[in-house]
Amino acid sequence: MTIQYDGSDFHGWQVQAQGRTVQGDIQNALRAIYPEEKITLIGSGRTDAGVHALAQVAHVELPARLSPFEVRQALNGNLKRDVRIDSAVEADNDFHARFSAKAREYEYYLVKSYSTITRKYAAELQWDINPNLLIDCANILQGENDFTSFCKATAEVENKICTIYKAEWEDMGEKYIFRIRANRFLQHMVRYLVGTMLEVARGRYEVRDFKDLMDGIQTEAVVVRAPAQGLFLKKVYYD
Amino acid sequence: MTIQYDGSDFHGWQVQAQGRTVQGDIQNALRAIYPEEKITLIGSGRTDAGVHALAQVAHVELPARLSPFEVRQALNGNLKRDVRIDSAVEADNDFHARFSAKAREYEYYLVKSYSTITRKYAAELQWDINPNLLIDCANILQGENDFTSFCKATAEVENKICTIYKAEWEDMGEKYIFRIRANRFLQHMVRYLVGTMLEVARGRYEVRDFKDLMDGIQTEAVVVRAPAQGLFLKKVYYD
Repeated sequence: MTIQYDGSDFHGWQVQAQGRTVQGDIQNALRAIYPEEKITLIGSGRTDAGVHALAQVAHVELPARLSPFEVRQALNGNLKRDVRIDSAVEADNDFHARFSAKAREYEYYLVKSYSTITRKYAAELQWDINPNLLIDCANILQGENDFTSFCKATAEVENKICTIYKAEWEDMGEKYIFRIRANRFLQHMVRYLVGTMLEVARGRYEVRDFKDLMDGIQTEAVVVRAPAQGLFLKKVYYD
Repeated sequence: MTIQYDGSDFHGWQVQAQGRTVQGDIQNALRAIYPEEKITLIGSGRTDAGVHALAQVAHVELPARLSPFEVRQALNGNLKRDVRIDSAVEADNDFHARFSAKAREYEYYLVKSYSTITRKYAAELQWDINPNLLIDCANILQGENDFTSFCKATAEVENKICTIYKAEWEDMGEKYIFRIRANRFLQHMVRYLVGTMLEVARGRYEVRDFKDLMDGIQTEAVVVRAPAQGLFLKKVYYD
C-alpha cells in the first residue's frame, strides 16, 4: 500500500503504548474489515511525531477474500481525513516493505518567514543565512558515510553507515527545499542534518565543523535537530 | 495592519454571538493591551468560515502610547499561531480599511487529487474537467457586471454590480489556481463563481449557461458554491 498522511496529529508512524499513530489507525481499520485475523502492518520505516508522508509504503498479509482495491476503499472509508491509502496492490510473496526497499527519499521545507498556512508543514527560518554554505554541506554528504554524529544517541541499530545518493538544496524564493535520498536513514538523521547545516549557513559553525562531525573528528560543534513539521517522507524505492 | 490567518478553526472574520473569529481574537488581544479603550477593528471585508487570508488589512484607532511596531509585537505575543500580524503602520486620519480599498484579490486552489496535507487549504477536484472551459468562463467575467446570481440570496447589499479587473485560471500540474481581482465582492461570490465554472468544465452546463447566469437571463443552470477551504484573500489594494 502507498499511504499519505499529515503527521501533525500523530505520535509518529509506529504504534505506541499511548497516543494516536498512523500504523495504529490503519491496523485498527484493517481489524474492522478482518476481525478474525491477526493484523500487523509493516512500514518501510518509522516517521517521528509531526513528520508527514507523501508516499509511505507498507505491506500486510491478508486473506484473498477482498481485492486490494476493495481493501483500499474500505480502509479509506474508515480512516480519518489526515491519512489516506492512495494505492493498494497484490505484492509478491517475498516482498517486504522495509527489507525490500532500496532507497528512501525525504524532503525538508523551510520557509523564509512565518506562515499561518504552512506552520504545520514547514519550519521557519530564524536567521539570515548564506545558502551557498547549505550547498557546500550537502555536497559533503554525498556517498557512503558514518552518520553516528547525526542520529539519536540511543538509536538501537549498530550499523551507522548510510549511502547518500542525492543531497541538494533548492531556493524557491519564499522557501528552501532540502532533498535527500539514501539507502537508509537513522533515527532523526534528516532533522539533525538540516538543523546542523543551518547552523553553518547562519555562521555559527564552519563547513569544516560539519565535515568533522561527518568524519567523527573531535570538534566543538554540536549537532542541532530541526523541527519535525518541515519533514516529508517523499518516496520509497523498490526494484 | 496586514494580517494573515489560517481560517480552518475560525467562524470567519466577523465577530459572531458564538464561535471564534479573527476579528474577535485580535480585538481581545488589543483589549488586553488597552483595557481602558473601546476597541473596534475594521477589516477590508469579511471572509467566510474556513476561508484563509494571506494579507487581510484592518485599521483600529488607538492612543499613541505604543508605536505600531510595539502594538504588533504585543498582539503577536497574545495571538494563537493561526493568526499573525505581519505589519502595522500609522495610517492617515482619513484611511479606512474597507472604504479606502480600491480592489481586492482572491485566489482559489483546486487540487487534482486528494491530499492529506492540503485538505484544509485547497478543494479537491471531483471530476475530469476541460480546463479550456474554465478559461472561457473566466473571460466572460472581465469588466463590469451584475453578480446577483452569484451571491448569497439573503445578501444585505442593494448594489450587486462589481468590476472585475482580472479573472484567470492557471494550470500548475498538480493543481489549478483561479485568481480574481475586483473593486468589490459580494458574499460567497468567488465560491459561487468557482463552483459554477467547474460545473461547466465538467460538462454539466454550457459556457452559454454561465453567461446567461451572468446576464440574469432565464436558464436551467443553478449556481454551485465551491468549498470554503480553497479560498484565500490574497491582497487588498489602496491608493
